[in-house]
Amino acid sequence: MSAGKIFGVGLGPGDPDLMSVRADRLLRNARHVAFFRKHGRSGQARKIVNGMIPVSAVEFPMEYPVTTEIPLDDPRYNKLLSAFYKDCAAHLKALSDQGEDVVVLCEGDPFFYGSFMHLYSRLRDQADVEVVPAITGMSGAWTATGDPITWGDDVLTVLVGTLPEEDLAIRMAQTDALVVMKIGRNIDKVKRALKTAGLYDRAWIVEFAQMPNQVVTKLSEACEKVTPYFSIIIVHGQGRRP
Amino acid sequence: MSAGKIFGVGLGPGDPDLMSVRADRLLRNARHVAFFRKHGRSGQARKIVNGMIPVSAVEFPMEYPVTTEIPLDDPRYNKLLSAFYKDCAAHLKALSDQGEDVVVLCEGDPFFYGSFMHLYSRLRDQADVEVVPAITGMSGAWTATGDPITWGDDVLTVLVGTLPEEDLAIRMAQTDALVVMKIGRNIDKVKRALKTAGLYDRAWIVEFAQMPNQVVTKLSEACEKVTPYFSIIIVHGQGRRP
Repeated sequence: MSAGKIFGVGLGPGDPDLMSVRADRLLRNARHVAFFRKHGRSGQARKIVNGMIPVSAVEFPMEYPVTTEIPLDDPRYNKLLSAFYKDCAAHLKALSDQGEDVVVLCEGDPFFYGSFMHLYSRLRDQADVEVVPAITGMSGAWTATGDPITWGDDVLTVLVGTLPEEDLAIRMAQTDALVVMKIGRNIDKVKRALKTAGLYDRAWIVEFAQMPNQVVTKLSEACEKVTPYFSIIIVHGQGRRP
Repeated sequence: MSAGKIFGVGLGPGDPDLMSVRADRLLRNARHVAFFRKHGRSGQARKIVNGMIPVSAVEFPMEYPVTTEIPLDDPRYNKLLSAFYKDCAAHLKALSDQGEDVVVLCEGDPFFYGSFMHLYSRLRDQADVEVVPAITGMSGAWTATGDPITWGDDVLTVLVGTLPEEDLAIRMAQTDALVVMKIGRNIDKVKRALKTAGLYDRAWIVEFAQMPNQVVTKLSEACEKVTPYFSIIIVHGQGRRP
């Protein structure tokens, strides 16, 4: 019996019509489907493939032991997550050893700030792992704004909202085009940094890009509320255009 | 008769299996297919869809009046290209006015350094234009390296090789993860900048990402030759990983 393959399949921004042909085929023929979710939730990745994966598929939900309950810099956070990823990887490895192929659902593109990377780094030397790239969430977001993100020689900087405010502001001020990911609770800090950098009035926020509940708003006109973690802020480049 | 729609369809990095389900469907049902190419060449975008578009499709090759024959900063360059894009846009608009849908082939993601943007900016207020996002060439490239591009709080900077050497070196030195696009004749300059920034030994070069002739090499081990314009240089982030 030969070992099975573990596929880290990028689902793209959330619209099944924007998945790759390869992802679509792998999902519709999957026998084992693994996905991350927060405890007590159905999981965003699993929701996206609703109706696509066979009813006979064996599902393996991987529930984070912690998400925002412990600060990122608390040593317990690293320890808990590290043990969690190790357990998940062992389960996938066991399935592969039994000759089973497994599809791991990845929101966005697996190698771009994805959780699957933590399984990949533990499995890559022990099993046959294939990564299927996908349309990034940021690409879904800038397409949703209806304006190109980069022209000519524009520099694009991608930042995460978890960085310190001062770092954000300095880097924002130095770029032509900007994407800010992982917003959520960091929204007020990110707004202040954009103001310091003089970009606030050019910024857009895209919630649920390429999903039925997509909302595209100028950040300065967005109402004051907590925005989802997966919201993306976009500032378009202004480069050379013949 | 209602007007037809103009679709700017992202083809992704080059593997038809990595096109979106929507792109695949639009291509296989296309009646009019427009694409850019260099004079005398078949065109990379057209090559990618070989065998996918119907034999009955009417093809509209849009041949650049100039590519590298005139420097970018020569006023003639802008003038020639501007007239060219205007003519192309007028042709697409005329088809749309006749009730015809048109698919415009776009390598990579249309809104990320794409030529289609120059048609889009001329057509968006005059016709019904839909942009179909795609997997970026850089995503195809970092997936090909087999290592994630960004972890945790990593900052990603995307630069184009056409920037001045000093700018390249300064920006390279400030980022965690790096992508350099539009390499081609700029390869020696980009290499020097990477050395100045201390990133040369961590850099990879991916030629023809996700295509049958894909080559992935450590830049320091790449042989001395002219590399294709669409080569992509990748330096992976080293961020937080539990």
